[in-house]
Amino acid sequence: MVRGAKICISGAYGSHELVVLPQSAKIEGEEDYAVAFAVPVDAQGITYVCQYSPFSAERDAADDIYELGNPIFGQRETAMVVFDNVFVPWERVFHCGEVKYSLKLVQRFAKTHRMTCGGTCKVGFMNLIIGACKLIQEYKGLEKAFHIDDELIEMVTLRETCRACGLAAARLGKEEPEGSGVFLPDELMGNVSKLNTCNAFWRVMALAGDIGGGTIVTMPSLKDLSNPETAKYVEEFYSFGSDEPTENILRVHKLLQNWTAGQHGVATWHGAGPVMAQKIMIKRVLDYEHEKNLVREILNIKPSH
Amino acid sequence: MVRGAKICISGAYGSHELVVLPQSAKIEGEEDYAVAFAVPVDAQGITYVCQYSPFSAERDAADDIYELGNPIFGQRETAMVVFDNVFVPWERVFHCGEVKYSLKLVQRFAKTHRMTCGGTCKVGFMNLIIGACKLIQEYKGLEKAFHIDDELIEMVTLRETCRACGLAAARLGKEEPEGSGVFLPDELMGNVSKLNTCNAFWRVMALAGDIGGGTIVTMPSLKDLSNPETAKYVEEFYSFGSDEPTENILRVHKLLQNWTAGQHGVATWHGAGPVMAQKIMIKRVLDYEHEKNLVREILNIKPSH
Amino acid sequence: MVRGAKICISGAYGSHELVVLPQSAKIEGEEDYAVAFAVPVDAQGITYVCQYSPFSAERDAADDIYELGNPIFGQRETAMVVFDNVFVPWERVFHCGEVKYSLKLVQRFAKTHRMTCGGTCKVGFMNLIIGACKLIQEYKGLEKAFHIDDELIEMVTLRETCRACGLAAARLGKEEPEGSGVFLPDELMGNVSKLNTCNAFWRVMALAGDIGGGTIVTMPSLKDLSNPETAKYVEEFYSFGSDEPTENILRVHKLLQNWTAGQHGVATWHGAGPVMAQKIMIKRVLDYEHEKNLVREILNIKPSH
Amino acid sequence: MVRGAKICISGAYGSHELVVLPQSAKIEGEEDYAVAFAVPVDAQGITYVCQYSPFSAERDAADDIYELGNPIFGQRETAMVVFDNVFVPWERVFHCGEVKYSLKLVQRFAKTHRMTCGGTCKVGFMNLIIGACKLIQEYKGLEKAFHIDDELIEMVTLRETCRACGLAAARLGKEEPEGSGVFLPDELMGNVSKLNTCNAFWRVMALAGDIGGGTIVTMPSLKDLSNPETAKYVEEFYSFGSDEPTENILRVHKLLQNWTAGQHGVATWHGAGPVMAQKIMIKRVLDYEHEKNLVREILNIKPSH
Repeated sequence: MVRGAKICISGAYGSHELVVLPQSAKIEGEEDYAVAFAVPVDAQGITYVCQYSPFSAERDAADDIYELGNPIFGQRETAMVVFDNVFVPWERVFHCGEVKYSLKLVQRFAKTHRMTCGGTCKVGFMNLIIGACKLIQEYKGLEKAFHIDDELIEMVTLRETCRACGLAAARLGKEEPEGSGVFLPDELMGNVSKLNTCNAFWRVMALAGDIGGGTIVTMPSLKDLSNPETAKYVEEFYSFGSDEPTENILRVHKLLQNWTAGQHGVATWHGAGPVMAQKIMIKRVLDYEHEKNLVREILNIKPSH
Repeated sequence: MVRGAKICISGAYGSHELVVLPQSAKIEGEEDYAVAFAVPVDAQGITYVCQYSPFSAERDAADDIYELGNPIFGQRETAMVVFDNVFVPWERVFHCGEVKYSLKLVQRFAKTHRMTCGGTCKVGFMNLIIGACKLIQEYKGLEKAFHIDDELIEMVTLRETCRACGLAAARLGKEEPEGSGVFLPDELMGNVSKLNTCNAFWRVMALAGDIGGGTIVTMPSLKDLSNPETAKYVEEFYSFGSDEPTENILRVHKLLQNWTAGQHGVATWHGAGPVMAQKIMIKRVLDYEHEKNLVREILNIKPSH
Repeated sequence: MVRGAKICISGAYGSHELVVLPQSAKIEGEEDYAVAFAVPVDAQGITYVCQYSPFSAERDAADDIYELGNPIFGQRETAMVVFDNVFVPWERVFHCGEVKYSLKLVQRFAKTHRMTCGGTCKVGFMNLIIGACKLIQEYKGLEKAFHIDDELIEMVTLRETCRACGLAAARLGKEEPEGSGVFLPDELMGNVSKLNTCNAFWRVMALAGDIGGGTIVTMPSLKDLSNPETAKYVEEFYSFGSDEPTENILRVHKLLQNWTAGQHGVATWHGAGPVMAQKIMIKRVLDYEHEKNLVREILNIKPSH
Repeated sequence: MVRGAKICISGAYGSHELVVLPQSAKIEGEEDYAVAFAVPVDAQGITYVCQYSPFSAERDAADDIYELGNPIFGQRETAMVVFDNVFVPWERVFHCGEVKYSLKLVQRFAKTHRMTCGGTCKVGFMNLIIGACKLIQEYKGLEKAFHIDDELIEMVTLRETCRACGLAAARLGKEEPEGSGVFLPDELMGNVSKLNTCNAFWRVMALAGDIGGGTIVTMPSLKDLSNPETAKYVEEFYSFGSDEPTENILRVHKLLQNWTAGQHGVATWHGAGPVMAQKIMIKRVLDYEHEKNLVREILNIKPSH
C-alpha cells in the first residue's frame, strides 16, 4: 500500500500507467521511501487535483479552438497526484528498500530526461517561436530591420546550442551496464543541456516578445473579427498593410502570446528539474583531476602530497 | 475631424480625457499627422476594441477576486482605440501641422515616461515579486538555501539599479525651457532607465520562477480548498509543513503566477517603447566629443582636421 | 608594535601616510586585530614587495612613454606591504581592541569606496575606452556600421548605469552619526554600484575588443614607425586609408590594448572588494519586511504569527 | 607577382608554407583579389612585422621561463605579413580570378576553423583555467566556499557547451562535394560554435579572475622568492597557510595572470573571425521556411501567396 503525493506531474492522467521512482538518493533509514513501481493510471486510491490557470478558463470560454494560442496541442496539463493507500501488486514493484540503488535510478532517469528536455523538446518549441517571429517580421514589412534579423540570429544560436548539447549528450553516451545493450546519455552533458535550456528559453521569450510587439499581449479576441461593431477596425489595423488575411495574422500573434506570455518560462525551467538540481549533479560528476594535472604538467610542478 | 487608431493603449477607457500626441518626429509633407489634442474619453466616434486574454477569461470565470493572481488591481487593461471622424474643438488642439515641433513633443513625453516606467513603476512591481519570493522561501523552510539568498540579492540589485537610474534621470533633469519652472528628466538617463528595466524584468521573472517553483504554474484553483474531494489533499500538500494557513500560501503562489507567467514580460518591455526606441534616442543624444577629446589629451595627439 | 601584511594595496608607497583599518568585523577574542592607525609611508619596519607584471617589463624596455598603453598615468602600481614590528605612537592610534566598533569602521569605509569605485572612478575609465572605440570607428570609416553603433550604445548604457548608481548612493546618503556634519553614502546603493561595475567592466572590455579588432593585441611596437625596414609597411597598413597620422592611430590602438588586454578586468572586480563582499553586505542590509508586507496587503492576508 | 598584406596572422613565420586565401566573397571586377596560392614562408619579398606587447618585453627580461605565465608555450605570436612583389609559380596557384568560387573557398575554411576554434581549441584553454582555479581554491582552503563551487560549475558548463557545439558541427558535417571523401563541418553549427566561444571566454576570464583574486595581477616577480630582502615575506604570505611549496602557488597564480589579464579575450574573440562574421554566415544559411511551415501547420493557415 502506497501513500504520498507528487505535487506536479505533467500529462500523467492522460497515460495508461504511472511509473513511480524515488524522489532522490535515499540513505539508510529511508527504506520506506526507496520505492519504484508501476500502477494503472486509474488505480483505486489515486486522485488527481488538476491545475487551473487563466489558460484553463480561456479554453472553457472558447467557442472554437482556433481562438486559442496553441489550438491543437493546448497547454501543458499538469496535476497533483495523490496516492491514498494504493495497492501495488508485487510483480509490478521494481525497487523496494534497496537504498543503495535509489540514486542510480534517479540519475539514470534524470540524465535521460535532461538530454531530451534540454536537447530536443525545447528545440521544437523554439522552432515555432522563431517561425512565428519571422512571419510577423514579414507581415509588417520589416525584412530590412537589422535589429530584428539580429534577434532572429540570436534565437537560432540559442536553439542550435540546445540542439548541440542534446546531440553531444547522446553521442557521448555509454552502454550502461556494459553488455546490456542499453545506452544512456553522458551525465555531465545531459545536465549541461538542461542548464543551457533554462536560460535560453527565457531569453528567447524576451526576444520573441520584442519582435511580436505589445500587440501579442494586448490583442483582441479572434471573435472580434466576426463582431459587426469591431470587425472592420480589427480587420484594417491588424493587417499591418499586408496581403495576408487578417485572421491568419491574428492567429500567429495569438501563438506568440501563448509562448511569451504564459507558463512556458517557469515550466521549461522546472520541468526535468530546476537549475540547482543540475548543478548538484554536475558537481557530483566532477573531480577536476584531469584539469589540475594539465596545470601541473604545463608548469612543471609536482603535487605536494 | 480626426481619423486613425492607436493599436495598444493601456488604461485609456478608464480615464476622463484622452490626450493625443504625434506618434513620432514628423517632417514636411506630414502636417496632417502632426497633431496633439484632448478629447473626452467617450467622444462621438471613438471605439475601444478591448484586449481579450486568458486573464480576461479567468476573471469572467472567478467567483471571488481572491481566486485571481492580482486580486485588487487586476491585469493591465489595454485596448485598441479607433477615432472614426472625431470632432475636436479648436480650443483643445495643442499642435496642428507645425512639424518642426513634433519631435520635441514626443521626446519630452518619452523621456519622462521612460524615467517613471524605468525608474519607479517597475521598482514597485519588483517589490511585490521579491516579497512573494521571500515569503515562499520562509513557508518552505528554505531560509538557509544559499542559492535562494543569492537569487534574492540578484533581484534586489536589479531593482535598485532601476531605482538608481530613475533617481539619476530626475536628479540630472533640467528646467525646459529655461525660466518656465518646468523641469524634465535627463534624456540620456531617462532612456538608460528604460533599457535597464527591459532586461532586468525578464531576469527577475526567471529568478522568481525558480524560487516559486513549478507549482506556481501548476497549482490548482483556490476553489479546490473548498471542494470536498480535493480540500484535504490541497490543504496538506500545499502547506509545505508550514504553520501558515494553506490558503495564504496558495494566494502568494497565485500572485507569483501573475508576475512570472503572464503578460508582464512583454508589457514591461514595450510599455514606454521597446529597446530599439531607446537606442535611437540614445544615439541622437550622443556625439562622443567629450570622450574623444579625453583620449586625445591623454595620448597627447592633435585632431588631424 | 604592529606585525602583519596586506597582500595587495594599490598606490600605497606613493602616499605620505598609510591609514590602516581592521580587515573585517572582529569579535571578542580578536582584540589584537581590532586596530586602526596611521604611520608615515616609510616608517621603520615597513617593506613593500612591488608587483611585477608584463607591464612593468614593458615600461622598463620603453625608450619613450608614448610607446606605452597609458603613457601619462601608467599602470596601477600595487604592492604587498609588510609590517615587521612597526612602532605606532599612541596619538596616531584610532581604534585598539574595541571589537564592537570594528565592523562599523569597515562598513563606513566600504560603502564609500564602493560608491566611488562603482559610481565615478570606472565611469572615467569607460569614457576613455568609449572615446578610443569611437575614434577607431572613424579612422576605419565605419560610421555606418550598425553593429558598432549598437556596441557603443551598450557601452554608454553600462557607463551611465554605473554613474547612476554612484549618484544615487550619494543622493540617498545620510548624516552619520546624526549631527556630525558627516554624510555617508547609502549602504545598499553603494554596494549595488560596485556589483554593477564588476560585470559592466568585463562587458565593456569585450565590446571594446570587438571594435578595436585583433590588431589592438597584435600590433607592432610604436618603434616600428621609425625602423627603416618596417616603417613604410606599418605607415601604410595601419593608416586604414584615413587622413589621421598613423602614429596617432597606433597610439589609440595601444590605449585600447591597455584597457582590454591587461589587468583592469581583474583589478576592477577586486578593487574595493569582490562580488561576494558586496553580496554579504547587501544581505546584511536587507530584511524584506517592507516587501513582505506589501504582498500581505495586496492579498489581504494576515501574518500567521 | 603578389602585392598586399594581412594585418594579423598568428604563428605564420613558424610555418613551412603560407597558404593564402581570398579575404571574402569576390564579385565581378575583383578578379585580381580572387587568388589562392602557397609560398614558402621565407619567399623573396615577404616581410613579417612582429607584434610587440608587454608580454614580449616580459619574456625579454626573464631569466628563466618559469617566471612567465605560460612558460612552455608562450604567447600567441602574431605578425603583420607583407607581400611586396612576391613571385608565385603557377603550379602553386589554386585559384586565380574565378570569382564565383571565392566565397566557397572562404566558407569552407571558415566553417572548419570556427568548429575547431569554437569547439576544441578553447576547450583546452578552459581546461587550464579551470584546473588553476581549482588548485587555488584548494591552496587557500576554500573547498567549502559555495560561491567558488558555483563559479567552477559555471566555467565547466561553458566549456562543455563549447565542446558540444564543436562535436555537433563535426557530427552533422557532410561530404562535400559528394563522393569526394572529404567531410566538412555543418556550416550553421560551425558558426554557432564560435559565437558561443566568444562570449563564453570573456565570462570564464571574469570568473577565473574572481577565484584567482586580486593577487593574480598584483603578485611580485617569481624572482622575489630568491631576493633576500623579500623572500621570507613572499614565502610566508603567498603560502596561504598551505603545505604546497610557495613557488608552486606563485606559478599557478602566474598562469592565471596569463589567462585573465592578457591578450586572450580579444584574441579568442577575433581569431577565426569576430562575432559579426559569424552572424553574416548564419544569416546566409537561414531561410526559415521550415519554421514558418510548422507555424502554418499548427495554426491550420495557408500561405497567402
